[in-house]
Amino acid sequence: MPLTAPTLDLTADPIELTAALVDIPSVSGDEAALAGALEQALRTQAPHLEVVRCGDAVLARTHLGRERRVLLAGHIDTVPVAGNLPSRRDGDLLHGCGTSDMKAGDAVIAHLAATLTRPRYDLTVVLYDCEEVEAARNGLGRIERELPEWLRADLAILGEPTGGAVEAGCQGTLRAEIRTRGRRAHSARSWLGDNAVHGAGAVLARLTAYTPREVDIDGCGYREGLQAVRITGGVAGNVVPDECVVTVNFRFAPDRDADAAVAHVREVFDGFDLAITDLSPGALPGLSTSAAQEFLAATGTTARAKYGWTDVARFAGLGIPALNYGPGDPNLAHTREEHVDTSVISRCASVLTRFLT
Amino acid sequence: MPLTAPTLDLTADPIELTAALVDIPSVSGDEAALAGALEQALRTQAPHLEVVRCGDAVLARTHLGRERRVLLAGHIDTVPVAGNLPSRRDGDLLHGCGTSDMKAGDAVIAHLAATLTRPRYDLTVVLYDCEEVEAARNGLGRIERELPEWLRADLAILGEPTGGAVEAGCQGTLRAEIRTRGRRAHSARSWLGDNAVHGAGAVLARLTAYTPREVDIDGCGYREGLQAVRITGGVAGNVVPDECVVTVNFRFAPDRDADAAVAHVREVFDGFDLAITDLSPGALPGLSTSAAQEFLAATGTTARAKYGWTDVARFAGLGIPALNYGPGDPNLAHTREEHVDTSVISRCASVLTRFLT
Repeated sequence: MPLTAPTLDLTADPIELTAALVDIPSVSGDEAALAGALEQALRTQAPHLEVVRCGDAVLARTHLGRERRVLLAGHIDTVPVAGNLPSRRDGDLLHGCGTSDMKAGDAVIAHLAATLTRPRYDLTVVLYDCEEVEAARNGLGRIERELPEWLRADLAILGEPTGGAVEAGCQGTLRAEIRTRGRRAHSARSWLGDNAVHGAGAVLARLTAYTPREVDIDGCGYREGLQAVRITGGVAGNVVPDECVVTVNFRFAPDRDADAAVAHVREVFDGFDLAITDLSPGALPGLSTSAAQEFLAATGTTARAKYGWTDVARFAGLGIPALNYGPGDPNLAHTREEHVDTSVISRCASVLTRFLT
Repeated sequence: MPLTAPTLDLTADPIELTAALVDIPSVSGDEAALAGALEQALRTQAPHLEVVRCGDAVLARTHLGRERRVLLAGHIDTVPVAGNLPSRRDGDLLHGCGTSDMKAGDAVIAHLAATLTRPRYDLTVVLYDCEEVEAARNGLGRIERELPEWLRADLAILGEPTGGAVEAGCQGTLRAEIRTRGRRAHSARSWLGDNAVHGAGAVLARLTAYTPREVDIDGCGYREGLQAVRITGGVAGNVVPDECVVTVNFRFAPDRDADAAVAHVREVFDGFDLAITDLSPGALPGLSTSAAQEFLAATGTTARAKYGWTDVARFAGLGIPALNYGPGDPNLAHTREEHVDTSVISRCASVLTRFLT
């Protein structure tokens, strides 16, 4: 624990705490100061919790012998600062890098961990690093490898920005490269060649003709999508290209597992040379468990589908139902204009308090 | 004239002279040594010629008062050396950088200029620099601007590699960028976007459906071609792309002028955003003139179409009929294995001698 860690008051209003967290910059890979401040605050202000540090993640939990355990998780890193620090309050809005994604969620989680000394579920809090960068560096993945017993729970709630809505599960994501090949030739004698870029027209035609599926799972409507996210081909301005690569991204509802998603994409592009380059299965909403039902009751609302992939899928992979629920606005994530509506911070804090006590 | 210029014997057999030219490296932009050697040799060994130096081009001409003038031209630069110097003789083959493209042609031209003291046409010889690089640096273009009277002639013969065949005129070349636009969105919510790469499928469909024209001009069969030479689109692996650019190259027969070529491409891609990025008109074969007919008679053969663009188009632009005729093998140009069949050097030299005397 660095001696220089700023002091955080976890008992303060979560809105104030959000501003304090935002004012300790924590771009991915540079979370040490914020992790140190959170660790110090939890150790000194929440003596009812067991606290551990794992890299630049901070974990804390109760040992009350409750029948069930709820895990609250949030990443503490942000995308690069874009001239939007320190935080700035303007009426109901709090502006600054990380306000929505997702220090408002972190503030609610840390505040509840410190102040709810007798929750009705045993409580685990995971505040982790490196979510905004490549999966191999993800702090939650490191915890899964190094401290797997810390992730055991009956329900996981991620404080990712959902605008205060409950977003259940998440869709999976698959990327594939579809490669057409031809024969190089000088473009002045193009009949000697075979144009691989022209050949990619058939790939694009299948994408254009594709009708994405919509499916209802546990009352949540998922919408799939199959999109070209990149196309590249060409050798020189006077050469018939002998190769073209179309990169497609398939976002699939969580009723398909990874193998089913691969099989579907291979079927759509039957006859083409296709290589899977990236594959993350989704997460079923898991709303049928009692803990999830109790959480929904506390919110007084129903869940909707989460379209984007989030770390809830890691929990689903461990057999733990997981939801996204946080005060940030997903549409503002990663923007220079990032801000959060402070009234949603207060609402999320009181909903979670109602659920947990 | 640098004092260090190696001595060339222009009266030697053109095969020996080819080897001597090849052994003075002259990659584009670095032709001074070779230009100096050629200038010195012409001044000392061909007193019947007027000689001028223009940059790293060397020009020479007779003033015999003939009714007609024939111009022989060749570029003296090469593509970068690829471990293929000095020249190496292996039976009938002479290996080395520039043997085919086009120092064998230059050797024939310089040899005839020095040895045919009483040609039946007045003779102009243009040995120029920087043909293998961007058009703005082309030595023939500089001569056209600075010494335009030196390019006046009734027939121009370029010694570009044709394998000893007569290739008439050349096709034009046009490049255009066809841009499709859409709306960016996160690929997890692709229905909020509009995929510009998918939109490019319609561009590729038109290319695939396109039937290139073949046309006979002056007995030469030209074959047009319309090819995608590059395609590029994509923002990130999780973003629906909002722009895609297809670069097409149209090679057009010389009965279309530049405006007609542009109009044709615009018609093919009617409805798309299209920008012309490069345009060089072709050259009509011009075989009906008496000088061209006399040259063909000397070769004992007929002309065929030149598909690739060459500097003959510059002469055509000046109203001068121009042909490609040289001993090099066009298929070996720019290759590491570049070589020339020495028997074709001898044949070209004797055909040109027959024509000019």
